[in-house]
Amino acid sequence: MALVVRGELRLTPGKAAVQVAHAAVLLVQLAERHPSPTFSRWLREGQKKIALVVPTLTDLEELDRRARAKGLATVWVEDAGFTEVAPGTRTCLGIGPAAASELDPITGELELL
Amino acid sequence: MALVVRGELRLTPGKAAVQVAHAAVLLVQLAERHPSPTFSRWLREGQKKIALVVPTLTDLEELDRRARAKGLATVWVEDAGFTEVAPGTRTCLGIGPAAASELDPITGELELL
Repeated sequence: MALVVRGELRLTPGKAAVQVAHAAVLLVQLAERHPSPTFSRWLREGQKKIALVVPTLTDLEELDRRARAKGLATVWVEDAGFTEVAPGTRTCLGIGPAAASELDPITGELELL
Repeated sequence: MALVVRGELRLTPGKAAVQVAHAAVLLVQLAERHPSPTFSRWLREGQKKIALVVPTLTDLEELDRRARAKGLATVWVEDAGFTEVAPGTRTCLGIGPAAASELDPITGELELL
């Protein structure tokens, strides 16, 4: 599972962590509605997650297109905007769960958060 | 939902975000096994989460005791230790979901991550 934050928002570490957590929970809820061997394996193998960052919303949108083109699940996190950003701002993209062999071609070159 | 990281480990922002996400997913999975009006309300109201930090494991353990004494759900995240910390290291405590009126007396004074 890859959780990719939008760098240009310059979120604090805590705020970024919350966006990453929102994305992870949304992906798990989505996977629970469509159980798959991939999801079962991911749960069994310790729910591996990685937090990454890309500079802009355009980068995130491109990542979303590439992931969906490969058949991977994606979710967007929109912040309620109580604190650091305007309401409805897209802050984070979640991808997966998926095997490393599926995720790596899409996210392997991205910077760690 | 409060997600509290162990500051003394000096995790990178990305690694801390992953621990916070692990805790959030574990709490949601726990709540799904014991559905409650509090959990339904939390889902309906946008899954509010906050990421906090305390200095030491002792602080986290004390927080865990206080939360459980109030009847709140808690989960521990143990890192698999592939990168920054030794395997089995307790990195993060998750508490909730709970109403703000229940969480605030326990976590209200803690530092934001």
